This record gives sequence, structure tokens and C-alpha cells, in this order.
Amino acid sequence: MSVRRAPAVIFAGGPVGAWEVTGIQPVSGVSLPAVSRLAVFDQPTSATPRAGSSDAAWLLRGAVSNARYTRRSEQDALTAIQAGLGGSTATRAALIAIVKSERWWQLAQDERRDIFGERSQHISLGRPYAAGIARWLYRARDLGEPFDFLTWFEYSPQQAYAFEELVNRLRATLEWTYIEREVDIRLAR
Amino acid sequence: MSVRRAPAVIFAGGPVGAWEVTGIQPVSGVSLPAVSRLAVFDQPTSATPRAGSSDAAWLLRGAVSNARYTRRSEQDALTAIQAGLGGSTATRAALIAIVKSERWWQLAQDERRDIFGERSQHISLGRPYAAGIARWLYRARDLGEPFDFLTWFEYSPQQAYAFEELVNRLRATLEWTYIEREVDIRLAR
Repeated sequence: MSVRRAPAVIFAGGPVGAWEVTGIQPVSGVSLPAVSRLAVFDQPTSATPRAGSSDAAWLLRGAVSNARYTRRSEQDALTAIQAGLGGSTATRAALIAIVKSERWWQLAQDERRDIFGERSQHISLGRPYAAGIARWLYRARDLGEPFDFLTWFEYSPQQAYAFEELVNRLRATLEWTYIEREVDIRLAR
Repeated sequence: MSVRRAPAVIFAGGPVGAWEVTGIQPVSGVSLPAVSRLAVFDQPTSATPRAGSSDAAWLLRGAVSNARYTRRSEQDALTAIQAGLGGSTATRAALIAIVKSERWWQLAQDERRDIFGERSQHISLGRPYAAGIARWLYRARDLGEPFDFLTWFEYSPQQAYAFEELVNRLRATLEWTYIEREVDIRLAR
């Protein structure tokens, strides 16, 4: 029986990979083991390393999925301006791995949307940064992974200050009070 | 590194299992191979059969996840009345496996909610049946599985007519025009 290939990714922290790890910061909760490099496997195949079968100290899996809170008007506004991944000037990256609390996941859809959209302004807060900082969200919770979300950012060194501002503004929101583990991995190539 | 165990399930169609397969109907698109029995593995472990390693003709995996459209008021109303699984009188079951079209998945959250909730009345349509027919939704799309959703129903023979009515009413909704594959598997024990 054929299995549809979900757009997915594996981040492998270890001795090899295109990205140099410049820092791993446990913002909340337990960190990840220190590694020197990060390899990114898009569209994993059977040849992609699996847990226990490679030199990687850790492997994090995620899947691209549909948007959960974004309204059509918000989505269209964002699509019109957002940066693509992998520009040659995008030599900085961040992988931010997050676990939200059970208290969050037990909320109903309207309650989560209210916190995410209206009270934390997650979408409008991020919009000014979308043209300069590429962002890709992978979901991992339903995969039984240790994190709920893996967000990958790519940007040029000129955007480094803006990126810190974005991250700090998000961490000051009501939404972030529902985050019980956050590991912030910074990278360069 | 510890991996959280997501509440998950594997449905294995083959020669063994607690449930007798009384019918497999391809409502839309391609069917599944005929089998005589269905085994249900809750909380799969490494000992659970995997594709290619057992006598099963097919294995379908799904994960319990958070509600995507249900509002707090709807959720509370449903929780107050809904039936639990596994009653001794619940000797009938159905496994309905569904794929929604890319057209659906490209919709924004407000557009999907409008079709699901307001225009198809999915929640209010199902509510009168919730006390007599237990329902459990597993999501599979992000797992790279062949179906997007696996819905498991359990009910007593006395509820068989109500179950047909429920299924027929759902299939008549606008939401169902976004379904491009549906396999309806009926079971008894």
C-alpha cells in the first residue's frame, strides 16, 4: 500500500552537517545535549539517519502541516511579503524547539485562537519581520516527538538584531506563558 | 533522549483480531484490500506489528490530537453527553478512513471552521447521536499515512439504525464535498 509522503524534516545534531551550531540555550526546561554541527534532512527517506543508528547526538522530527489559527486575510497578507528559505545571504539560522503545556492543549479552538491571535497578536507581531526573516514551522506533537513545534528561521547577518527583537517580543506574550520547554539553537554557515 | 508517547493507535486488517470485518465499502476513491478480522493496538509499542513484518494486509496508524474547530461551549456540551468506548453492549463498530482534498488543506482556519461548523453543522449534527454512539478521532495526515483521518465508532446493535442516519447526514454536508477518499469498514464482535 502506498504511503503519501508528508512534507517532513529531520534535524540531526552531531559531528556533521551544513550548519555550525553557535549556541544552544535552554530558555525553559531541559536543554538538548551540546553538538558542534546540525544536519537538516528534508523529505526523509529510509537512508536518513534514525535514532540509535547514526553518530547524531539527537534527532528531531517534524512535519509540515496546515495552519491552525491563521485567517484568510492574515494568510494572504503574510504570503504577499514573506521571505523564502535558502537565500545565499541567509547565513544565520535558528532552530527553536518548543513544548506547550497540557493546559494549552486542553483549551478549545476558540480559546487558543483568542490567546494566539487576539491577546498575543502572534501573527501581527511577526508580520514586520516576515520579509527579512524566513520562517518554517514543523509540527511534532502528533508524531510522539519530545517537542510540540520546531520552528526554523533563516536570515542574513544584517537581520540578526531584528531576529532578537522578534524572539524577545514573542517571549513576552501571554501565549508564551503556556510554553513549558523551549530550547533555542543558533546556527551559522 | 526520552520520547513522549503520543496517544496513538494502529488498526491492523488481516486474519486475526478481536473484531470480525463484516464489510468494507469504498464510499469514494480506492478501497482497502478485503480482510476477515481487525486488530486494534492502542498505545503501540515496539512489539506492535509494523508494515511488512506481520500477516496483516494493511496497517493504519493514527494519533489522538487536540480538537481543531470545537469551541469551548460546543466542547462542554459534547463532553456532558458523549458515550465512552468499550461498553460490553457495544458489539458493533465502524472504522471510517478519510482523505480530504488539497483544496481543503489550503483553506485558512476561518474558512475551514465556517464549512465544518456553520455551513455543515458537523458538531450540532452529531450531538444527538453522541450519547449512544462512542466516537474516537485519530489524525494521520501529519504522520505521512495514506489517510488523513481514522474515525472509530462503537455502538450497540440497537443503535445501528441511528448510526446509518448519522453517517448519511454527514455525507450530505458541504464538508463532505472536500472528501476525495473514504473507506467505510464495518465490524462486529
